Amino acid sequence: MRMSRLFLRTLRDDPADAEVPSHRLLVRAGYVRRVAPGIYSWLPLGLKVLCRVEQIVREEMDAIGSQEVRFPALLPREPYETTGRWDDYGPNLFRLHDRRGGDYLLGPTHEEFFTLLVKDLFSSYKDLPLNLYQIQTKYRDEARPRAGILRGREFVMKDSYSFDVDDAGLEAAYQAHREAYVRIFDRLGFDYVIVQATSGAMGGSASEEFLAVAETGEDAFVRSPGGYAANVEAVTTVAPDPLPYDDVPAAHAEQTPETPTIETLVNHLNVAFPRGDRAWEAADTLKNVLVVLRHPDGTREPLAIGVPGDREVDTKRLEAQVAPAEVEVFTDDDFEAHPDLAKGYIGPGALGEGGASGIRFLVDPRVVTGTRWVTGADADGSHVIDLVAGRDFTPDGTIEAAEVRAGDEAPDGSGPLEVARGIEMGHIFQLGRKYADALGLQVLDENGKLVTVTMGSYGVGVSRAVAAVVENSFDDLGIIWPREIAPYDVHLVATGKDEAVFETADALVAELESVGVEVLYDDRRKVSPGVKFKDAELLGMPTIVVVGRGLVDGVVEVRDRAAGERTDVPLAEAVEHLRSVCR
Amino acid sequence: MRMSRLFLRTLRDDPADAEVPSHRLLVRAGYVRRVAPGIYSWLPLGLKVLCRVEQIVREEMDAIGSQEVRFPALLPREPYETTGRWDDYGPNLFRLHDRRGGDYLLGPTHEEFFTLLVKDLFSSYKDLPLNLYQIQTKYRDEARPRAGILRGREFVMKDSYSFDVDDAGLEAAYQAHREAYVRIFDRLGFDYVIVQATSGAMGGSASEEFLAVAETGEDAFVRSPGGYAANVEAVTTVAPDPLPYDDVPAAHAEQTPETPTIETLVNHLNVAFPRGDRAWEAADTLKNVLVVLRHPDGTREPLAIGVPGDREVDTKRLEAQVAPAEVEVFTDDDFEAHPDLAKGYIGPGALGEGGASGIRFLVDPRVVTGTRWVTGADADGSHVIDLVAGRDFTPDGTIEAAEVRAGDEAPDGSGPLEVARGIEMGHIFQLGRKYADALGLQVLDENGKLVTVTMGSYGVGVSRAVAAVVENSFDDLGIIWPREIAPYDVHLVATGKDEAVFETADALVAELESVGVEVLYDDRRKVSPGVKFKDAELLGMPTIVVVGRGLVDGVVEVRDRAAGERTDVPLAEAVEHLRSVCR
Repeated sequence: MRMSRLFLRTLRDDPADAEVPSHRLLVRAGYVRRVAPGIYSWLPLGLKVLCRVEQIVREEMDAIGSQEVRFPALLPREPYETTGRWDDYGPNLFRLHDRRGGDYLLGPTHEEFFTLLVKDLFSSYKDLPLNLYQIQTKYRDEARPRAGILRGREFVMKDSYSFDVDDAGLEAAYQAHREAYVRIFDRLGFDYVIVQATSGAMGGSASEEFLAVAETGEDAFVRSPGGYAANVEAVTTVAPDPLPYDDVPAAHAEQTPETPTIETLVNHLNVAFPRGDRAWEAADTLKNVLVVLRHPDGTREPLAIGVPGDREVDTKRLEAQVAPAEVEVFTDDDFEAHPDLAKGYIGPGALGEGGASGIRFLVDPRVVTGTRWVTGADADGSHVIDLVAGRDFTPDGTIEAAEVRAGDEAPDGSGPLEVARGIEMGHIFQLGRKYADALGLQVLDENGKLVTVTMGSYGVGVSRAVAAVVENSFDDLGIIWPREIAPYDVHLVATGKDEAVFETADALVAELESVGVEVLYDDRRKVSPGVKFKDAELLGMPTIVVVGRGLVDGVVEVRDRAAGERTDVPLAEAVEHLRSVCR
Repeated sequence: MRMSRLFLRTLRDDPADAEVPSHRLLVRAGYVRRVAPGIYSWLPLGLKVLCRVEQIVREEMDAIGSQEVRFPALLPREPYETTGRWDDYGPNLFRLHDRRGGDYLLGPTHEEFFTLLVKDLFSSYKDLPLNLYQIQTKYRDEARPRAGILRGREFVMKDSYSFDVDDAGLEAAYQAHREAYVRIFDRLGFDYVIVQATSGAMGGSASEEFLAVAETGEDAFVRSPGGYAANVEAVTTVAPDPLPYDDVPAAHAEQTPETPTIETLVNHLNVAFPRGDRAWEAADTLKNVLVVLRHPDGTREPLAIGVPGDREVDTKRLEAQVAPAEVEVFTDDDFEAHPDLAKGYIGPGALGEGGASGIRFLVDPRVVTGTRWVTGADADGSHVIDLVAGRDFTPDGTIEAAEVRAGDEAPDGSGPLEVARGIEMGHIFQLGRKYADALGLQVLDENGKLVTVTMGSYGVGVSRAVAAVVENSFDDLGIIWPREIAPYDVHLVATGKDEAVFETADALVAELESVGVEVLYDDRRKVSPGVKFKDAELLGMPTIVVVGRGLVDGVVEVRDRAAGERTDVPLAEAVEHLRSVCR
């Protein structure tokens, strides 16, 4: 491919809405172009990378005996209604009508239709195990499409589905996928972790995520020295044992004027009610946070969450717990509707299904029986001290909503947690029988008895992987493609005005292509060497070859884009040298 | 691929809704499966064929220097609003809202976005000519989705777009596409014709269609011995020269009771008003047909069409003339709203923008000045005789809406027309500057002056091609794939219960695959040879190899699916023989 003909314009400036490196670089280097929020076109170079990623995924899925099919993106409502996902997905689903008024959706994933297809064609345990996949365009109406193709509303995904008669079969299919994913992400060449995850709207039991480690990632995860790793949403809190509280004095309300925040409260406590043993700390207080859950059917439900005062409520952890409900702000109107709540001084007294407000009250797992707290006294400027859980109040239950912090203990005792960020690249689910039950997928077993099939579902973000690779592999100059997914093996730059240089370059390109090396050839005549080098560095082919001044000495320059090394190679040896570099 | 593992069930019965052979066979043979009206899934074998068709199209587009890109299917409304297509497509467009209420559509074709992309990146005549294509999923909410994947609502299309500074450039791009299409359809191996076509909602000037010749096709086309070929919608009528009418007696209304149809009228005329020279014929009468046009903005407009009584109005020809309006029935309510119309006896007297009803009146081009007609007298049971066009009435214009019949003269004088049917497989348009004008795509020319770019747009029905090939290549037993797009080269059937047969077959399959022959291997143990042969014939691989009884004589049987020929080939020579057959 010659640059003089390639449909490409590299851009000097970052796109105005670009927040992350991959977005910035993929747009500037002309790989993708925005059409609407979260909706992108693939330009020639970008499409080549996308197809290479698709091919890696395809090869590894074929290698575990998965068979490729392709479902439509436009799907009728009924099966999603049956499984509940039509509602559960809420505003994340693109819904539409056809000309006869029929309800349709743009598929976010295809569990329902794979289940129905297998039900349609297969009927015996002898037909199983079965493993199907597709690489297909999917849709999700994200509330905050961002970061270019990293979080789009139209995107390419590989989704696969396993069908087994028993749990051992599902476990084997799950492990086969897990290993295939390891190979896929190894080949894509980026740093990733496998973490425990929550299942969300998908349902099912065990699930793990493959996260590309990246500061700009939307997912926070933790890992411990002992090998524990989990998405922050999936981390469980180590609850202490219940404490004896016989010696704890009775709870007593105190005047704490103008202490609506934890900080003001702790300061006031240390001045007005100093402890004998040590200073009061934020962790001694119980902070009661109010939110509203919006359920898929549109109803709003207030919820109070009690967390130790030194921790915030983590909205993503909370959302994972209450899904498919969404979390909204508890507004001034909500306060007006609940006059028993003293804003800034809310305590367990007003909360709970049996409390004055009737608002459900869930607490952090650390709030075990016998723990003593300073918390709101449900009156302006007043807090209760020595309020003991299990003696003075009983919450409606616990919830994993408090933030996870570096240094927290891993739930399996494998040491203190480190917190980092990543991009969700793959997610594997042991769905179990949720979809097969809902849609009636049964087969005859060896004894002629009908049994419900157990399923797994497994996704890879294919278009997202293009961005994730860039997040993992770039520098100040531009993109640095790993060799396996680079759009071209070699970026050959011919410099100068001498016609002989271009003739030599033409011949070298032809020779390279004849031995299977794919070349992007910068043959532009009126473009300066400086601009050409800048473009080559921005575009990011792994090897840059310069044909120019060195020719007087019989050499071309070979640059390694990643290492930055430059080597002069005799022209006569260039083809052989480059072939061995590229293979 | 082993049949024992392949996700496939061949079906004994035709699907209930199957009207055409390709639909029947592709479903029965397990290539596709219906999800909703006009919406299908591709099963493993079908997807392989689809990908092979895609690859042929890709190679031929690359060969003319077109560059592959990929646009989203989900598109914002605005550019389609600007060009008018948001309205013009009427109910054929799938429209939807996103969570913020923004208007989106599922792309039927992408002229607008290609135009905007080029505008976005290119600015000089030096950047042109440019030629871009995509192979992508498209949507059209067909009123009558039918015939399986032959006319779907979600389908795969190759659409390409050319950009040039001048008409000569457009002409060259158009010709290059025309030639690429000839190569594509030659490789797909079916009988096709290239016909003149109308441009419909696409707009633009010259356009031609590539039709696969098939009795079951939805498009009627004509061709003459002298080489004229056109879609029936695009055929122009040879209008006779005006006739002198000085000798024609004055028009006279006559009682013709109970003659609301042409047949009853002609019979009555021959009895009550016999001609001296010959009998009255249907062609002597002028039939005035009323319809209602529904415009994209929803308004209804009545229209009267006058055609010689021996011809019907062809709705598809009429629709092509009035697009983007749609044609609806003129109802009893419409008659009530126009009391000047005498149903069954409507004549030019009541019609025309200056007539009593005010209804626009267009006539067939054969109704030239001086022609004399028997037609309705606008009173029940009465007709006018000797009504002369241009003397006694003047229509509002002419319209190409009368049916085209075998034996009609070709408009270019190349002989009588033959009428046949075909499936639209490709359509090439010289769009000209319609889209570039609407969306402001201009570049600087050699003199530094802004000029509007001229465009072409070119489509191939990729998923439809899979069905069209089958329409062209099947027999009573099943599908017969042309070698270039068959999912596998060879269907190898192992028969009998002897383990040695399967061992020989296993080894032969491995050897064939090692030399690049792709094999579908029927290794099923408990399936009878009869069932296996039936499946092999239904599935339609070009070569069937039987490994079984012949082994005692050291031979395998090689069957040619198309010719039905069977040859015994020594086992030792089988690999070499099959390799040469398949290449």
